[in-house]
Amino acid sequence: MSGRVLVNGAPEATVSVFDRGLSYGDGLFETIRFVRGAAPLWTRHMARLHAGCGRLRLPLPVPAQLLDEAIAVVAGIDQAVVRITLTRGVGERGYAPPRDANTTRIVAGFDAPPMTGEAYALGMRLRWCETTLSAQPLLAGMKHLNRLEQVLARAEWTDPAIGEGLVCDGEGQVISGTMTNLFAVIDGALMTPSLDRCGVAGVARAEVLGHRPDARVAALRREDLARASEVFLSSSVRGILPVQAVGDTLYVPGPVTRALQHHWRGLGFPMEQA
Amino acid sequence: MSGRVLVNGAPEATVSVFDRGLSYGDGLFETIRFVRGAAPLWTRHMARLHAGCGRLRLPLPVPAQLLDEAIAVVAGIDQAVVRITLTRGVGERGYAPPRDANTTRIVAGFDAPPMTGEAYALGMRLRWCETTLSAQPLLAGMKHLNRLEQVLARAEWTDPAIGEGLVCDGEGQVISGTMTNLFAVIDGALMTPSLDRCGVAGVARAEVLGHRPDARVAALRREDLARASEVFLSSSVRGILPVQAVGDTLYVPGPVTRALQHHWRGLGFPMEQA
Repeated sequence: MSGRVLVNGAPEATVSVFDRGLSYGDGLFETIRFVRGAAPLWTRHMARLHAGCGRLRLPLPVPAQLLDEAIAVVAGIDQAVVRITLTRGVGERGYAPPRDANTTRIVAGFDAPPMTGEAYALGMRLRWCETTLSAQPLLAGMKHLNRLEQVLARAEWTDPAIGEGLVCDGEGQVISGTMTNLFAVIDGALMTPSLDRCGVAGVARAEVLGHRPDARVAALRREDLARASEVFLSSSVRGILPVQAVGDTLYVPGPVTRALQHHWRGLGFPMEQA
Repeated sequence: MSGRVLVNGAPEATVSVFDRGLSYGDGLFETIRFVRGAAPLWTRHMARLHAGCGRLRLPLPVPAQLLDEAIAVVAGIDQAVVRITLTRGVGERGYAPPRDANTTRIVAGFDAPPMTGEAYALGMRLRWCETTLSAQPLLAGMKHLNRLEQVLARAEWTDPAIGEGLVCDGEGQVISGTMTNLFAVIDGALMTPSLDRCGVAGVARAEVLGHRPDARVAALRREDLARASEVFLSSSVRGILPVQAVGDTLYVPGPVTRALQHHWRGLGFPMEQA
């Protein structure tokens, strides 16, 4: 639990037990990679947070204030991650949202997780999760605080050699990793699963789609993935992660993955850190 | 925010911003009606909490400790509600549950919500919610902290004349109210929706099913409800609530509802309080 925390701008590290973020998961979060005090994808994070607030009818935060606070909590940490959590604040008992919510704003800085160059070069090993994601179009795509499905999926394995698990929806469509988005090159086309019914629409995914407007957002099944020529994951914290295996199916990082890793470095992200 | 709060037994009213209950909704809660310091359905609440901890692999709480703390926070409140929240505690960043979780235990006392005798005598008016519940068998029935669907459903109306909203799943099956369970008398049989795929299996519902072993747990559609001779809601906080209308469909509280209200009073719950 390194780094500093600001709650509504004040140097605190607690919230009320009556906060609706705790009571109901009534809020959103962003996990933002900072490099020497700057966040290359800041604008995309703010766009997603803004859209999520609109969908949950949360008061909009002030991006300049969030940026000031984010910079403050990572001061002195070269390779950092900032988690911004925004909740509907303290409320009376009961699900009904208060008419005039005073949101709770939590900005916390951490050391970025260590990543070896080997993971970026050779790729990660993945498994299939048994936990499936439920379909809820009203919440799909948002990075909201209701994340029990991800917790259950991530709890399925402890083997440190497995870097991520892939999750499907109840109908067998492949959706994403537990904490990453998924891309595959199939029949020469770059593809990523549609997230209209479940999943989190990652900021790194948005960056890839912005850089590769020819990429296709589509339904993807396990058998499609099995015949992919390249598979990789995207993460705003870890970047572009080649996949070398999903269960028993092996892949070799290819030119599409390498080009996107190059793009990622060009944004200002390191592809390795201690 | 009346009443007292204990966090892990200490008189505090805050939790760490790193608590997984806040970060991911990784936990459970119970809302328990107390009458002059006693909770008639205590054993059922503890049974549900125990079962939920097993499903989420949370360390089991100690019921005697929870009861001591619950009694402490409602001391001096004749008609009270206790919310017990149990989370997986403070964790590192990331969905993976810590191997040895130190749960956070929050016990908070409130005044019971005022209920008029009129509501118990004439019944409540209900509406249909547009928000549907997603199907997730791994979480169905549990009173976990991922409650955004209920927040969205409850946010659909502000008219105080509407006492509750009914929610369906994505396939049109009627599931429950936003904060109550649903019962109907159809062709002379007492029925309540199956909660194997979504919804919260209420403690009051369990009490009704225990008292009326002939009741049937089954799939229920809106057209089934339309031809019911009686409709009522169950709530551990409010008891047995007759329904006088769902949208434009009118009902009259009948003998099954009245008999269960009588049973409820026999448990020690008042059917009216200021």
